[in-house]
Order: sequence, then C-alpha cells, then structure tokens
Amino acid sequence: MSLTYKGTGVDPSRATDALAQVRERIAKSRRPEVLGDVGAFGGLFASPGADMVLVATTDGVGTKLDIARMLDRHEVVGTDLVHHCVNDAMAMGAEPLFFLDYFSTSRIDPAVFTRVVGAMADACAAHRCALLGGETAEMPGTYGVGAYDLAGFLVGAVQRDRILDPKNVRAGDVCIGLPSNGLHTNGYTLARAIVARSAAAQGKDVFAVLSSPRGDLDGASLGDALLRTHTSYLAPFRAIRDAAAIRAIAHLTGGGWEGNLPRALPDGLGAVIDHAAWRVPAVFQVLSELGRVQDEEQWDVWNMGIGLVVIVPEADADAALRAVPEAAVVGRVERARPA
Amino acid sequence: MSLTYKGTGVDPSRATDALAQVRERIAKSRRPEVLGDVGAFGGLFASPGADMVLVATTDGVGTKLDIARMLDRHEVVGTDLVHHCVNDAMAMGAEPLFFLDYFSTSRIDPAVFTRVVGAMADACAAHRCALLGGETAEMPGTYGVGAYDLAGFLVGAVQRDRILDPKNVRAGDVCIGLPSNGLHTNGYTLARAIVARSAAAQGKDVFAVLSSPRGDLDGASLGDALLRTHTSYLAPFRAIRDAAAIRAIAHLTGGGWEGNLPRALPDGLGAVIDHAAWRVPAVFQVLSELGRVQDEEQWDVWNMGIGLVVIVPEADADAALRAVPEAAVVGRVERARPA
Repeated sequence: MSLTYKGTGVDPSRATDALAQVRERIAKSRRPEVLGDVGAFGGLFASPGADMVLVATTDGVGTKLDIARMLDRHEVVGTDLVHHCVNDAMAMGAEPLFFLDYFSTSRIDPAVFTRVVGAMADACAAHRCALLGGETAEMPGTYGVGAYDLAGFLVGAVQRDRILDPKNVRAGDVCIGLPSNGLHTNGYTLARAIVARSAAAQGKDVFAVLSSPRGDLDGASLGDALLRTHTSYLAPFRAIRDAAAIRAIAHLTGGGWEGNLPRALPDGLGAVIDHAAWRVPAVFQVLSELGRVQDEEQWDVWNMGIGLVVIVPEADADAALRAVPEAAVVGRVERARPA
Repeated sequence: MSLTYKGTGVDPSRATDALAQVRERIAKSRRPEVLGDVGAFGGLFASPGADMVLVATTDGVGTKLDIARMLDRHEVVGTDLVHHCVNDAMAMGAEPLFFLDYFSTSRIDPAVFTRVVGAMADACAAHRCALLGGETAEMPGTYGVGAYDLAGFLVGAVQRDRILDPKNVRAGDVCIGLPSNGLHTNGYTLARAIVARSAAAQGKDVFAVLSSPRGDLDGASLGDALLRTHTSYLAPFRAIRDAAAIRAIAHLTGGGWEGNLPRALPDGLGAVIDHAAWRVPAVFQVLSELGRVQDEEQWDVWNMGIGLVVIVPEADADAALRAVPEAAVVGRVERARPA
C-alpha cells in the first residue's frame, strides 16, 4: 500500500479551509500600512520612519490553554495572546503595529481553530493592530488529542525619545497600579495543581470543581474566574501618557511581582509596595486557601490583582490617577537597601 | 502541605539560567540598530526609513523535531528555524533584520535548550540578523518527556520598489532552481511514517532504521539524510539579485511544488517544470521506494531537490546562472491552459 501525507494525519487543506472561515475577521484588522495579501510568504507592512524604534515581543498563554479547552472557552486564549503581547510592547512605550500567530496541534479541529484565530483577529482589530500572518502546524503525535499550543509575535513602534527606560526612574517616583481581573495568563500550572488537589480531596473530578458556582466568588465558578481575559492596558496607558510623564512600566506576567517589577527599575533603586493599597481579587484568596500557598509564593507567581505598574514622577501622580480612575498608588521608588 | 510553583514542575529560573549560557552567542548577533538589552519586556530595533517595507514571517520546524531528538541532533532544528524564516522573507525580496523564538516544553532541559537556542543565535549571527528576544514556556503535561516545540518569527526589510510581487511575472520568464540538500523542514510526518513502516517490516526499531548506514545513500544513514540543515538561500539570492532582475521567488516548503510555486505566479500564468532538469537527491528516492509513495504525492509534499525557485526574465537567465553556478533552469512560465 502506498503511503500518502493525508494518510499519515497531515492535511494542509484543513488549515487553508479553516483560515478561509476567519478571513473577513482578519481583514478587519487591516491598516493602511499593510501591503499585499495574507498567503504570501511574508506579510508586508510599510516601515514607520527612521525616527521610530520597533519593539518586538513574543508570548504564549501557557497552561491556561488546558482550562480553556476543558471548559470549551477557546476564544479566551486567542484574545489573551494578543493582549499579552500588546501590554509587553507597551511596557517599552510602544503602540502596536502588527501581530503574527503560531498555532500548533496534532490535528487541526477547524471549529476550534476558527474560534481561537477569530478571537485573535477581533482583538487585533480592536487594537488597530494588523493580523499580518501566521503559521498553522499539524504535528501528529506531538500533542494529545484536542491539545494545541499558541505563540504570538507582535511588533509595535515608539518614538525614539519616548522609549521607556528604567534608567529614567528616580527615587521618590510613584508606582501606579492598574487592576487585573485575575491571573491573566500566568501561574496556571500552580492554579491547576490546586484545583486537582481540591478535586481529589472532595472526591470530585476537576471539571466539577472548575464549573461549580462558589459563594466565595460571588456565585462565579473557579473556571469563570480563571478564564477571565488577560486585560489589555492600551487605553489606560494612552490616558496616563497624555496626562503624565511615564518613567517606566512593568507588565506583571510570569514571575509575578518579584519577576517583573525589578525589570522596570535601574540598579540601586527598589520599590516599596503597599499590599493594602488595593483589593486582591477573590480568586487569589480562594486559590491560596485551597492550596495553602505561602504568602511570598503567591507574590512570586501571580499578579495579585495588579496587572500593570506605571511609574511616574511624584508631581504627576495625581494627574495620572485622574486620567485613569480605576488606578491606585501602590508604592514608591526608594534607594535599595543593602540586603 | 502548601503548594509551590516549583513543586508543580515550573521553575522560571531554569529558563533564566539556560539563557545565561547562550548570552554571548546571542550577543554576537547584535546589529547597530539594536537598542537596549535582552530581558526587557520587548526587543528594541531602530526602524528602517519610511521608504522601506517590513516583511514579517513565522514558521515552525514540524516533526523533524522528533527525529532530531531521537538522534540527539538538537542544533539542526535551531538552525533550520532561522533559515526557514530567512528564506520566507527573501521570497518577498527582503533582507533579514531581527528574529525572535518561542521554545515550549513540559520541563526545560538546560542542555537541550542551550543547544537549540545557541544554534539559532549562531545562525542569526551568520545572517547578520539580530536575535532580539524569545519566550520560553514550561507547560507541564502538554508535551511528552523530552519533547518540545519551536516557533520562529523574523522581520526583514525591502525597499518599496523592490518588493517581489507575482504580478510582475510574464509568460516566457525562466524558473531558476536552487538545489536543496533534502527535505529541509517539510514532509517529515510522511517520512516518519515510512521509516516506521520500514522498521516494522524489518522487525527493527525506528532508531536502528534511522541510524544504519545505507549503500543507496552513499554510506550515510537515513537519519543523516533527514537531518541535513534547511538550506539558507540568502547568499545565492543576493548574487542573483545583483546579476539579474528577479521577478518573483517561491520557497518550496509545506505543500511541496504544488503548494508553493503557484504562490509566486499571477492568475492566468502557470509554470511548466522539467523534472529531468536536475538530479533528485537520493533520500527522496529511498523514501519513495520504502513507502511506495506515488509520484504526484511526492511532488505535493516534498521539494524533490529544489528548495527555492527564482523567476527571472528570459534575457537575464544566463546572467543568473553565471552568478550562482549550482543553479539550473528548471522550467518556464506559460499562459495557463484551461484545465
């Protein structure tokens, strides 16, 4: 018997057909700088001028994917991926220009693919960020049935004299925190382990634990709380930028506070954060209690309710808070004390 | 017992430590346009001028990964990923500017990670393409033990009036073929199925079939032949560009000839390819015989020995061939005949 590619489980037409279903939504993300069509060997985007600096970032969504799959909420991770990348570029001061995605699975499920990529396209369009291309890989045997992985790549641009550089931060500067709605896309392996342990302790399956309404989450389920979309901070970033001088930004993702806030600070300076300055969302308390997670561990893994920290001069703090009413002063930059 | 992130199998310091080991090799890929350091939330790259067009592409290496892992040849897939992206951007006429990678696995093996990412860094440096950033994801449970997936993202640039556009192709133009050294990074699921079937038929394991020297491969093993590095065509592309007017380029990747050559042609034109114009590498014949793969199927899946087709005006064909002695005329553009 002769072997064929389709016979081995790879069918390039599955990707092409699935892509055709989201073509109109992708087209809505188009910007004037985009030249040519999706489908060429590379996406074309007119370069911004030489006074601009390109900012490039790549991200995944981690094992939040597993929860989204289990609860059939695939759109969430598509949107998450775009928002995560938008925030990372923003942390350098950039506005988004274009985005590309990598979708990898053992066998494309067109219904799932169109939901994920369609959500990406919508999120790109909402940010005026062109969905410029992507790669869809069928790798039989690499992923379990129904499993897939996602990576996103975003290029943004910032004027050279407006790049956010930690070197500009000064002692006395104020840390403005913007609220998160939950874990965003980080710390899910710990969250999943907690859910699995809780299920075992209760003699339930994981699906039941994730989908049961809970009093301590105001009637939402853990699944609902864990599948809130990664917040995009582009609108509040613009509002603060128009009202205040931004010194630096930290996007609180993998590694939580300890892993990210220092990336926005120069050597010799630290930030003193007042943990009582905002309300930690209930999902963190629920997870911590179920998993008996130590306090320090929580802050090293999760964002604890603040997804973005914007550092501004003290004189500009009030203006920043007026521009973004949901923001709060969460701390202050000080000289680092020898440990 | 309290749960910790490390206890669940994710340890962000593993990625940081592994990255530190390849930092010097990454630094060698640096270009003058790169600002700031790896480790920020996004990589910074001075924009080329507004007369330039950015070309963005994303790729993976598919299940060639499985063979590289089995034979402990991780460097190959790191190099492949860069070369694949360089060629895709080149198919639009672009020179590479910068590259980012996504490395995803259940648990980072620092030795493997440094070999893969180190090879990417070296390949970037060899192409004067900055390795500007990357994302390393630990996703316990998503991948089997030792398995990983890779995605690459490359941005290049081309002068606006030198973008390669299929619309410029004319009947009578000549197709110049540049040799491949094997499958490059496509059609490996079919190749793996053939190897598995051959192993079963011989009562051997797959490793033995992949690693045995073969007379029909001049003493090389199938594993050797399947792990040749994806050819980068940047040097011959430049040589042809300097000697001839390039009308369009097709990079023969997933989908083989049928899936890629038409992407370099406008509606109404087709290419008549003379399959006798070059020597098909032995690996394709060996695989086809072992798998009894139909002739048409081979051409729809594999590159069959030509990795890049450069379309030039008839008057420039001789100059192109002189510029790149290993190239050959493989066909001619003609008006498409109604099917």
